[in-house]
Amino acid sequence: MPMTDTAETVISAFDNVPAFAKGMVRDLRVRWALEEIGRDYAVQNLDAFKPKPEGYRDWQPYAQVPAFADGDMRLFESGAILLYLGEQDERLLPRDPGIRWSAITWTIAALNSVEPSLMQIVNLDFFLAGQPWAREARPAMLELARARLESTEKALGEREWFAGPFTIADIMMTSVLRNVNHTDLLDGFPALAAFKARGEARPAFQRALADQMAGYREPV
Amino acid sequence: MPMTDTAETVISAFDNVPAFAKGMVRDLRVRWALEEIGRDYAVQNLDAFKPKPEGYRDWQPYAQVPAFADGDMRLFESGAILLYLGEQDERLLPRDPGIRWSAITWTIAALNSVEPSLMQIVNLDFFLAGQPWAREARPAMLELARARLESTEKALGEREWFAGPFTIADIMMTSVLRNVNHTDLLDGFPALAAFKARGEARPAFQRALADQMAGYREPV
Repeated sequence: MPMTDTAETVISAFDNVPAFAKGMVRDLRVRWALEEIGRDYAVQNLDAFKPKPEGYRDWQPYAQVPAFADGDMRLFESGAILLYLGEQDERLLPRDPGIRWSAITWTIAALNSVEPSLMQIVNLDFFLAGQPWAREARPAMLELARARLESTEKALGEREWFAGPFTIADIMMTSVLRNVNHTDLLDGFPALAAFKARGEARPAFQRALADQMAGYREPV
Repeated sequence: MPMTDTAETVISAFDNVPAFAKGMVRDLRVRWALEEIGRDYAVQNLDAFKPKPEGYRDWQPYAQVPAFADGDMRLFESGAILLYLGEQDERLLPRDPGIRWSAITWTIAALNSVEPSLMQIVNLDFFLAGQPWAREARPAMLELARARLESTEKALGEREWFAGPFTIADIMMTSVLRNVNHTDLLDGFPALAAFKARGEARPAFQRALADQMAGYREPV
């Protein structure tokens, strides 16, 4: 749960974002992991529309969120932060080598084999929506995204979570799939849709989402 | 160096790819890491143009390369494989927590903050080059890529490598930057261009590249 003053663990988040981004920004991934292990954290709020405070790029070079601090340890990249928290708590990343490396593999797969194809849709629909070619490009981008989703769905098969027990891989894959919540893309992939629903149903996810939404200065 | 029969370590690679992909395919990242630590490996060759052998998707769910095996441990995703090798050898990933987590963070940054923006250029120039909108889309995609490269260059500053000593982060970032070798994109980023040149000048990279190129069935 977010605490303002006493926590050793600090994340950065936006307290003002475009409407489409509410409930989607990547600090949610880290909040979710922290909720899974019941760890308090403080939030440094930034405005996505305004220049970042002096020195913020020393912490997060892309001026994005989340950045993360655990005492003196300062990280960025949601993927790296989940790996770090996983190393600290086996509820996020079990110690058994087979499970552990499967979880790490699927965490990276979410970030590098699945998310880029879905973010192309997000880019077309939001960030590049004013471009004259955006509508024309969408079918080809959807085809690439569907190919990745199909492979991912086959790999999941009938399992509940990607590495066996629930791990950081499931936090990451659920979060990555949520990027296209504004589309019907997952309708064609019932096993992935059910997987995402299982992730979103976890109390830790629900608390993290509520806390992220409560952090926005303007009403949703 | 690749050995056909005796190695415990096995990677998959393509022995037939489109001309533009020669010297670029991601098994190179793993070959490079293995050369840095002098570890022998065997190569399972696949044809990029043909259906993959029965069961290959159980090892690499996206039917891509590299897949990786170390005895019974089977992984995919070049990022996960570099993390695995880094855990085994501190020449790839030092044990000091500050250096280690900086290296992991920059490995993930290469995969999720830099590579997607560069692969959009690769997609437009090769995989989607026949699309009528591809030429029109290129300036906006270049702008997104330049923004990421600018932040990455500023973060590197005057350092030789991203985490201090040479680590898996440098293997990954060099490899990711090489995706746009067919463009002049890095001309605007002299520190990144020099960084990439330092990576490519390493004897381990040169051996890995020569071995990848030697593996193609048709002459380059």
